[in-house]
Amino acid sequence: MKTQYYTATSLDGFIATEDDSLDWLFPLGDVNETGYPLFIAEVGAIAMGSATYEWMLRHTDKITDQQAGTPWPYSQPTWVFSTRSLPLVQNTDIRLVRGDVRAIHTDMRHAANSKNIWIVGGGDLAGQFYDAGLLDEVIVQVGSVTLGRGKPLFPRRVTNPPLQLIAVRKIGLGFAELRYDVPKGVQADSA
Amino acid sequence: MKTQYYTATSLDGFIATEDDSLDWLFPLGDVNETGYPLFIAEVGAIAMGSATYEWMLRHTDKITDQQAGTPWPYSQPTWVFSTRSLPLVQNTDIRLVRGDVRAIHTDMRHAANSKNIWIVGGGDLAGQFYDAGLLDEVIVQVGSVTLGRGKPLFPRRVTNPPLQLIAVRKIGLGFAELRYDVPKGVQADSA
Repeated sequence: MKTQYYTATSLDGFIATEDDSLDWLFPLGDVNETGYPLFIAEVGAIAMGSATYEWMLRHTDKITDQQAGTPWPYSQPTWVFSTRSLPLVQNTDIRLVRGDVRAIHTDMRHAANSKNIWIVGGGDLAGQFYDAGLLDEVIVQVGSVTLGRGKPLFPRRVTNPPLQLIAVRKIGLGFAELRYDVPKGVQADSA
Repeated sequence: MKTQYYTATSLDGFIATEDDSLDWLFPLGDVNETGYPLFIAEVGAIAMGSATYEWMLRHTDKITDQQAGTPWPYSQPTWVFSTRSLPLVQNTDIRLVRGDVRAIHTDMRHAANSKNIWIVGGGDLAGQFYDAGLLDEVIVQVGSVTLGRGKPLFPRRVTNPPLQLIAVRKIGLGFAELRYDVPKGVQADSA
């Protein structure tokens, strides 16, 4: 059971534009040609922040589960971190939560039933799991674009010890998939 | 003859910390195990901005040419873009320039004598060559760190057409080398 931050990013480290657009992402390739199908099959619980969740509510056309015909793509229980009240999606297991990620991670681990926990984003939510020593892997699909500005991939300083690059893979002209293990231990210079 | 932006970056798209430190970079691997030796052998002219140049002046211990024993590592003619007066290094071919990159690129192309032109950095200088339609390749060594904030890799929006990922390579645990061709043509949505 691992806790994984799996996301797409621009080459210059943005997961979305400043106004939360992903329009740059979809022309770059077919998600089914990436490691996503294998990845999601091993996921037992999902966490995301409110900006990610609200993006999904606005783009049900892009995320609809074609087989189920539902406007929500995940069968796994999903925790949405938000300090605001947000609309829910019918016939889904979505839980609005706030506060320290540690207690919620314990709940997620039980629900995941020895499968993995996926931190969808954004970057700061992934950072909160990292800060609590709960993040095991970072898996990024580096899209072949630069955005110049936008929502940061991971607003943390992780240098000493650094991440450990486990695997790289080229996916057509549009994506490089990079997989990292996250070191456990105190950052010596996370100024 | 190609004009190449070749640089190291953090996973989150910073080429240096906010105070121009590269201390995070050197522990990640040996430059001689990367594509650098093959790359530099094909370079005939070099361009860099003033922050990059001043970093090199401050770190002659890290960049000294061991064979030549000189406090400057490059035998190629080097153009330093700066609006300020800067100290020069004795017995080197360093030219302080300012203004539009196009006229200077013409000079560099002649000096390079059909070898490549290397834009060392920073990101905005590489962006100026891109803006002028003069950038052919982006080659990044993605270090296995995140910085959270710092000097941007490439402060431009390049999405339509996107870059084209030509090759990926894993270099130990510390670097992923990504090589991109830069599309020539008008950006349709570089808002």
